Amino acid sequence: MLSDFGLKDSYVAEMKAVILSICGNAQIVDTSHLIAKFDVRMGAFVLASAASHFPKGVVHAAVVDPGVGTQRRPIVVETKHSMFVGPDNGLLMLAAKREGIKHVYVISNAEFMVRGVSKTFHGRDIFAPVAAHLAEGHTASEAGPEIDDYILPKFAEPTISAREINGCVLHIDDFGNVITNLSSKHLGEIGVKEDDCLSIRLDRKSALLKYCSAYGKVKINELITLIGGHGFLEVAMNQGSAAKKLNAKRGMSIRVRCA
Amino acid sequence: MLSDFGLKDSYVAEMKAVILSICGNAQIVDTSHLIAKFDVRMGAFVLASAASHFPKGVVHAAVVDPGVGTQRRPIVVETKHSMFVGPDNGLLMLAAKREGIKHVYVISNAEFMVRGVSKTFHGRDIFAPVAAHLAEGHTASEAGPEIDDYILPKFAEPTISAREINGCVLHIDDFGNVITNLSSKHLGEIGVKEDDCLSIRLDRKSALLKYCSAYGKVKINELITLIGGHGFLEVAMNQGSAAKKLNAKRGMSIRVRCA
Amino acid sequence: MLSDFGLKDSYVAEMKAVILSICGNAQIVDTSHLIAKFDVRMGAFVLASAASHFPKGVVHAAVVDPGVGTQRRPIVVETKHSMFVGPDNGLLMLAAKREGIKHVYVISNAEFMVRGVSKTFHGRDIFAPVAAHLAEGHTASEAGPEIDDYILPKFAEPTISAREINGCVLHIDDFGNVITNLSSKHLGEIGVKEDDCLSIRLDRKSALLKYCSAYGKVKINELITLIGGHGFLEVAMNQGSAAKKLNAKRGMSIRVRCA
Repeated sequence: MLSDFGLKDSYVAEMKAVILSICGNAQIVDTSHLIAKFDVRMGAFVLASAASHFPKGVVHAAVVDPGVGTQRRPIVVETKHSMFVGPDNGLLMLAAKREGIKHVYVISNAEFMVRGVSKTFHGRDIFAPVAAHLAEGHTASEAGPEIDDYILPKFAEPTISAREINGCVLHIDDFGNVITNLSSKHLGEIGVKEDDCLSIRLDRKSALLKYCSAYGKVKINELITLIGGHGFLEVAMNQGSAAKKLNAKRGMSIRVRCA
Repeated sequence: MLSDFGLKDSYVAEMKAVILSICGNAQIVDTSHLIAKFDVRMGAFVLASAASHFPKGVVHAAVVDPGVGTQRRPIVVETKHSMFVGPDNGLLMLAAKREGIKHVYVISNAEFMVRGVSKTFHGRDIFAPVAAHLAEGHTASEAGPEIDDYILPKFAEPTISAREINGCVLHIDDFGNVITNLSSKHLGEIGVKEDDCLSIRLDRKSALLKYCSAYGKVKINELITLIGGHGFLEVAMNQGSAAKKLNAKRGMSIRVRCA
Repeated sequence: MLSDFGLKDSYVAEMKAVILSICGNAQIVDTSHLIAKFDVRMGAFVLASAASHFPKGVVHAAVVDPGVGTQRRPIVVETKHSMFVGPDNGLLMLAAKREGIKHVYVISNAEFMVRGVSKTFHGRDIFAPVAAHLAEGHTASEAGPEIDDYILPKFAEPTISAREINGCVLHIDDFGNVITNLSSKHLGEIGVKEDDCLSIRLDRKSALLKYCSAYGKVKINELITLIGGHGFLEVAMNQGSAAKKLNAKRGMSIRVRCA
């Protein structure tokens, strides 16, 4: 489970209560409920960081849902590794793309929902019970009809040409590391190898930075690029804040080339 | 489990450790441990919001307990839907009244407690082990003798006459919604129907407000009344803070009439 | 599980995901993830407070690990009551000493680790999978060779002579109680009995204080000493802050004699 509900109110417990009402022996893990309110991109990043470590066949229920009560659709995404239940606003897609999307279904089966669905709390009334039904062994296709016009947000996939990758900043962590939506797979596609030098353009600033395997490979206060524990390329500073040095903000564009 | 223990210290873990020592396959859900310190009314509201969503037969252990170590009694409340274990200070009663109270017992059976009960931590030494014994299948009446002079706080039940309901403000949420202890059942008893106009007096301020099903049914910045996702009547403002507008505080009295 | 990872990011979920991948029916309890960053002593205190309440045979995975990626060793500590997995930096030893240390092993068995161990996240790549293998029934000795030169921090055990105990301040809680590393067992060794008067020297300040069983045994604003719910001697003030009065800080030395 992932959400921006916080831990003070009863929202998360209500979702869990609904899940356990349907799937009594569900094993529930909290990925995070402290996603910044309505920050779909941060939610997508945290979900993607965690998802690949879970065993195959797990069901993720994720709710960062500024559009609840509007026309945005509730969906189930089936990947090669797991299933994701949540709003069709891009939240699920960074994780799902990494695992390989197989099918996306719009949730319409009322038997998978709580009776009397509210307009304000789809987490409890739609996403939780659908996740519980999937955990019980129902197939994703029982949730509703397949669609292919689901929302694929810009941050879910960088664009790659022969020589460069254009992506964006997903998150700036507490250490000031600038985390992007580029993975080692993307870097491989333009021929980047460890210890290469990369030409980075972040917003309008440019820099030539080493691509290493560990922070300690450069001098203190020197900038480097590396793949973090979450599997994404980050711009970091050995024992300092890269975000401060580069004045980086979430959502900024980043362009990477082999130098 | 619900408490005001916070998540930094080991208190919640100690309670869980005691529960699992007695009932090894207990499935434990945290309702909230971030209730404001000693705020019995907020605890009662969050507990009541969550409780009805849990499956029948669940045991709730709730501890917001400014009177620990004094003469206040530890109790078990058996309702039509679940069991509640906690201090006799009103904390359990908002939820229990909604479910329908069947029996209340004072906990006195030492076999249901940890050996060497401390004076400062009944959550771990009394409430957790009693809850675990109930989860193991023991009956509530084994906990101790039945009582009928348990504390029923004013906020647990509004007073209803032929024409009006007198209740109070339970909680003001992060959006500024003013949440009261009135339910749709209470409103039904004075003949209120959806889309009626209600005469509200909050503390000394009066207003005529629409009773609707959704925030969006009135103009932006207009006040309305509706039943929130928690099942209580709230005074809200479409995209604004009703609490600010009305200068509402927790504990204020509210009177509702059909206009 | 205990860590200083916080609850916002996906780190804790990644550890749980790894545990459940190996030991599918593990029952996971969070002791605390809000230990102050890199504060090994606070982590040791919270772990020790919780550990003894868990059933025999439990596995604790604890990560407060400023030395990750350096030469500090990953260890398993087997005690008479449970097993502890974490860094060899003293974090585990306050709890382990209380339970009675039987064996300490350096983790070196690659089959107990995640493939491709990172340099920055041993919680997920070493401690979580080792804990899961132990929970699955593997023995601690399978983790690696036994050692006896593990780190035993000064705070893990006070020094006791015929007449006095020299220890330190482990933690100052939210009430201003000054919690030390002395237990009732240590006090018994110098002949202290309830209601005795103790000569306390905290840093350079001295005081004669009663050793009681409850805060209420002295007048309001009077200082006392007692064994807290965590099992350690604390210097407290009835309805006030002992830390403020005594200007106490974590890590300060404390000397206790019978007065």
